[in-house]
Amino acid sequence: MNPIDKKIVDTIKVLGIDMIDKAGSGHPGIVLSAAPIIYTLYSRHLKINPKDDKWLDRDRFVMSAGHGSALLYSTLFMAGFDISLEDLKQFRQIDSKAPGHPEINITPGVDMSTGPLGQGFASSVGMAIAEKYLKTNYNQKINNTQYNIFDHNIYVLCGDGDLMEGISNEAASLAGTLKLDNLIVLYDSNDTSLDGKTNMTFTENVLEKFNALNWNTILVKNGENIDDIDKAITQAKKSDKPTLIEVKTVLGRGSLLEGTNKTHGAPLSKEDIEQLKTKLGIRNIPFAPSNDAVNEFRNMIGSRINSVYDKWNDMYKEYIDLVGNETRRDFKILNGEIPKLDLTNLPKKFDNDLEESLRVTNGKMLNLIAPTNKLLIGGSADLSSSTKTYINDGGDFSKNNYKGKNIWFGVREHAMGAILNGISLYNIRTFGSTFLSFSDYLKPAIRMSALMNLPVTYVFTHDSINIGEDGPTHQPVEQLTMLRSIPNLTVYRPCDAKELEGCIINLNQTKSPSCLVLSRNNVMLEENSNPKKTEYGAYVIKKEKGKLNGIIIATGSEVELAVKISLELENKEIGIRVVSMPSLNLFMKQSEEYKNEILPVGVKKIVLEASNTIGLEQFVYGEKYLINVTNFGVSGKKEDVLKHMNFDYETIKSKIENLLKN
Amino acid sequence: MNPIDKKIVDTIKVLGIDMIDKAGSGHPGIVLSAAPIIYTLYSRHLKINPKDDKWLDRDRFVMSAGHGSALLYSTLFMAGFDISLEDLKQFRQIDSKAPGHPEINITPGVDMSTGPLGQGFASSVGMAIAEKYLKTNYNQKINNTQYNIFDHNIYVLCGDGDLMEGISNEAASLAGTLKLDNLIVLYDSNDTSLDGKTNMTFTENVLEKFNALNWNTILVKNGENIDDIDKAITQAKKSDKPTLIEVKTVLGRGSLLEGTNKTHGAPLSKEDIEQLKTKLGIRNIPFAPSNDAVNEFRNMIGSRINSVYDKWNDMYKEYIDLVGNETRRDFKILNGEIPKLDLTNLPKKFDNDLEESLRVTNGKMLNLIAPTNKLLIGGSADLSSSTKTYINDGGDFSKNNYKGKNIWFGVREHAMGAILNGISLYNIRTFGSTFLSFSDYLKPAIRMSALMNLPVTYVFTHDSINIGEDGPTHQPVEQLTMLRSIPNLTVYRPCDAKELEGCIINLNQTKSPSCLVLSRNNVMLEENSNPKKTEYGAYVIKKEKGKLNGIIIATGSEVELAVKISLELENKEIGIRVVSMPSLNLFMKQSEEYKNEILPVGVKKIVLEASNTIGLEQFVYGEKYLINVTNFGVSGKKEDVLKHMNFDYETIKSKIENLLKN
Repeated sequence: MNPIDKKIVDTIKVLGIDMIDKAGSGHPGIVLSAAPIIYTLYSRHLKINPKDDKWLDRDRFVMSAGHGSALLYSTLFMAGFDISLEDLKQFRQIDSKAPGHPEINITPGVDMSTGPLGQGFASSVGMAIAEKYLKTNYNQKINNTQYNIFDHNIYVLCGDGDLMEGISNEAASLAGTLKLDNLIVLYDSNDTSLDGKTNMTFTENVLEKFNALNWNTILVKNGENIDDIDKAITQAKKSDKPTLIEVKTVLGRGSLLEGTNKTHGAPLSKEDIEQLKTKLGIRNIPFAPSNDAVNEFRNMIGSRINSVYDKWNDMYKEYIDLVGNETRRDFKILNGEIPKLDLTNLPKKFDNDLEESLRVTNGKMLNLIAPTNKLLIGGSADLSSSTKTYINDGGDFSKNNYKGKNIWFGVREHAMGAILNGISLYNIRTFGSTFLSFSDYLKPAIRMSALMNLPVTYVFTHDSINIGEDGPTHQPVEQLTMLRSIPNLTVYRPCDAKELEGCIINLNQTKSPSCLVLSRNNVMLEENSNPKKTEYGAYVIKKEKGKLNGIIIATGSEVELAVKISLELENKEIGIRVVSMPSLNLFMKQSEEYKNEILPVGVKKIVLEASNTIGLEQFVYGEKYLINVTNFGVSGKKEDVLKHMNFDYETIKSKIENLLKN
Repeated sequence: MNPIDKKIVDTIKVLGIDMIDKAGSGHPGIVLSAAPIIYTLYSRHLKINPKDDKWLDRDRFVMSAGHGSALLYSTLFMAGFDISLEDLKQFRQIDSKAPGHPEINITPGVDMSTGPLGQGFASSVGMAIAEKYLKTNYNQKINNTQYNIFDHNIYVLCGDGDLMEGISNEAASLAGTLKLDNLIVLYDSNDTSLDGKTNMTFTENVLEKFNALNWNTILVKNGENIDDIDKAITQAKKSDKPTLIEVKTVLGRGSLLEGTNKTHGAPLSKEDIEQLKTKLGIRNIPFAPSNDAVNEFRNMIGSRINSVYDKWNDMYKEYIDLVGNETRRDFKILNGEIPKLDLTNLPKKFDNDLEESLRVTNGKMLNLIAPTNKLLIGGSADLSSSTKTYINDGGDFSKNNYKGKNIWFGVREHAMGAILNGISLYNIRTFGSTFLSFSDYLKPAIRMSALMNLPVTYVFTHDSINIGEDGPTHQPVEQLTMLRSIPNLTVYRPCDAKELEGCIINLNQTKSPSCLVLSRNNVMLEENSNPKKTEYGAYVIKKEKGKLNGIIIATGSEVELAVKISLELENKEIGIRVVSMPSLNLFMKQSEEYKNEILPVGVKKIVLEASNTIGLEQFVYGEKYLINVTNFGVSGKKEDVLKHMNFDYETIKSKIENLLKN
């Protein structure tokens, strides 16, 4: 390593170690193993402008090994991002710019929140898809000038743990299939994980495996050799495949405990820090980086990037002047203004006799919206034939067609979720679909959507036991509860086409994630359903006639049941109000007044939902008022299953009658 | 194919097609592609006795592609298992032996419930671990005779979808590391999935990939060539690695739609069935298998197995007579009698001053139980250093030591769950640990534990925002809700060592799955905590002094808070009862009387829990009585985080005082 490189690398290392020492917690191992990797990337390759961390065409960097936050922050400070030495001193303290794991919107230069292993790796595939899509759709020749607005790479730093996670394999397999050559993964390969050496757990030949996944692979044998890392990245940029660069390193290099898992997740001792700094030839004064090192690093980046950045900006200004209104609107969205899809093509009215499965209705609405919104893409985990989320004239996104709007995720629900997050980080509206029962597979990725507050839409169809024959593995029971419990996520379960339209409008106007939970079975159009009222989460869909004996709170397909039963029971002088609750999450945000207005205190309430209704007990006076499904379902004809689960029309009706007749 | 083989294969195919046709739903594609594979396996290799489907040393068969149920059932019928032609006619009907996807305990010959892709594959690795463990621990020489009680293989039939799922890669990587040569996977490779051809999604070189994962791999180019399949299996049995046999087939072979995804998930048309049968030379009479074919198949199996089975039985009887009481007890457990671990070494009493993290206490108790229970094994997803679930004298399970009780799963939470299921299917008590926040990764596997009702123990530590610095990705908020919502699963969150001991006793005496949710922070021993009462789910841990102004319902670490606050507020004449609720699931099963006794109607109740407490609202009179954590946490010192989230002692105390003082 030449002296300047070494000085900067060592300064990055020592700053990271100081941060962890001051915080009293953190992960020194990766700071010491991977500093040369991140330094090489930032100094010689990464297309970034530390003064404009939102630059549309910047390279993205994802610290998939999120516990390497100290390494990232010290590098960002050194590179000149808006994070100060003071901020570094506040590592892992509340309200600081340097939280325990990287968090988007907190630290300039952090392109994605990471921490749970594998998520960063998988989302980077989404980013690579987004870059390809934007490049192919928006770069163009105007008046004989070629405007390459998008032309950047996605870089990932990952560790052994990331690559052990199944989600990484899912995403890598798809990236290889799609030939995403804008994706370059730097693998800090140190044969060590939290519990010990990886020979106990992880002996696969990673490069051979990635070759089999259609990746370009490069081995850097000595992780301290900057030039070799540099060459590898240069070579990766030329490949027509995604690239994995395995960089052999030593965890906690330079520590007295180097090469052991003891350096992974606990601060180094004072003695260890002292000897480390002595070894590196750095004075043992915390947070005192050499000005030379800082300036040199910033100059390297600046001299490489400044003119590129200025040229791009000039080009971009010209481009925006030349393009049409629609493209200009798209760039407003891409720059993060409130996303506003064009929803004008949604139906103005519906046929009163409409009886249709909501997955079908949703597919139709998607196809009404898609043509006027280039920034709406998505797909399915190999179930679009069943979930009906295919954009008919959108084309398929493939290695031969990066213009395509339909992404084929394969049977990879988890990676689908993470990839949607990556796409959404580019401010492209995106959706992914599978069966509600399999939403389980995506939970960690949905949580990341919610943590980053990304407006991803998850479409989950086949929403209850009434799918019948496929049996309990395919019949959701507890998934609505799981989804409703995630902070920041809005779960919608509309009862008919009108409510569905309302939900679609709501979710396309928010900047947070949503789930659309849809029936496979047909539903009728309800006379009094109201798209506008979906934003309140619940509303009176059928008023009581005469005396109010009770209120049925229902969601989705069960609203139709509730209305029918209430009409029948009116003939027996039982006055029933039906409240449709397309979104519990939204209803809980309403005023006490509104809540009381539709669900007045002192009136018996019944919850009717084909789920285990946890979270809805709060509305009733006791368990007997819950008409729900608390056990796993069974395989059989829909009607038989409903009967078996005591959820058929007659059983429900008589339960309600018994509960309300007195 | 020789005429007899062909006749049997065609009969299996046609029966499967008849079943799907009669049911009006199902998956014909795999029936027609994979019949020769399953036939070869059952006729020439699988060590089974159709008359004794619980035979301890039988080979296991896992239909990981669970939608191939019709193929499996028709094969099981043909092989002579206790499933009749009448049963086949009831395919996908309620209460039949032939449900939509294979379900254990319903169909003789089904070794595992499958359906959600990847689960079967991953659990088979658990089965292979179990077989190795049992073989190494129980096969022995007695009086100069070698008793090989365990010596069998685990076979899997999987499809493209299974292999796209990340969980399969996780499990395969571990299987390769562990050199599980008793695992043989037959891969029905037909280049087609539900939505279309796999060239859109799945172009990896599967065999090369499995080579990189340290597997033996074999390609059978023609999936109709029984002899080639046979040879491949023979070769696989000789390998010292796990084997993947890729069998190239054509989805829906023989159908008019062969090779297309249209044969995947919808019944064939009548015309198609007719031409198919004509092509196969079989009369078009549904459910009329040739007696020859049936008898020939059963004879093949019988002549291969009968003497083997008889010899094994004789050996087993001798063995059981010769071994000691402890081993005899172990075999009672292995044969599925109510599992009764020896828990006598658990502490009889605790030091009143005990103040300890419950993850530490749990680790100690595990180490008290482990030495006297050979049938207790488990591990961690690379977090045993933090979760403390390591059995100190248990040894590490590795390719060099299949006697080891500690399984190193690597950073593979999802596969860990599925592998635990596989181990548990052998009636070995097993546990796996990670942080509560990462329980998300295991959700689909936990659901399978619950569906199969397997007594797996999930240990989830670091149970709330009060882990502090690691920040929101690592701080659980909604996970308790998710776990509590799963049918059949009992979630425990004990408040101290005594309750923890009670929970450990409960969960080790049930035949259903459990989660043990434990704090990282220290907790004090509560004066009135009661191990025995944990089985009620909740009980009064501190009585009110004088008038009962209110009840605090708390769980885990928050019980200590509740008791302290209630004692403080007693000085202000506010009488507070504290109810400790280590298990909401168990409490909900108690009698109304019991519930009313400890939580009487008309008394104000407050829920205090560092989670979003969904499912607990039912106990309170309004949202203001919930003292909980409804948003994602933040990174910072524990105390700062608690304060930031309004969950510090003083804030909680004043909230409670305000709620109860009037």
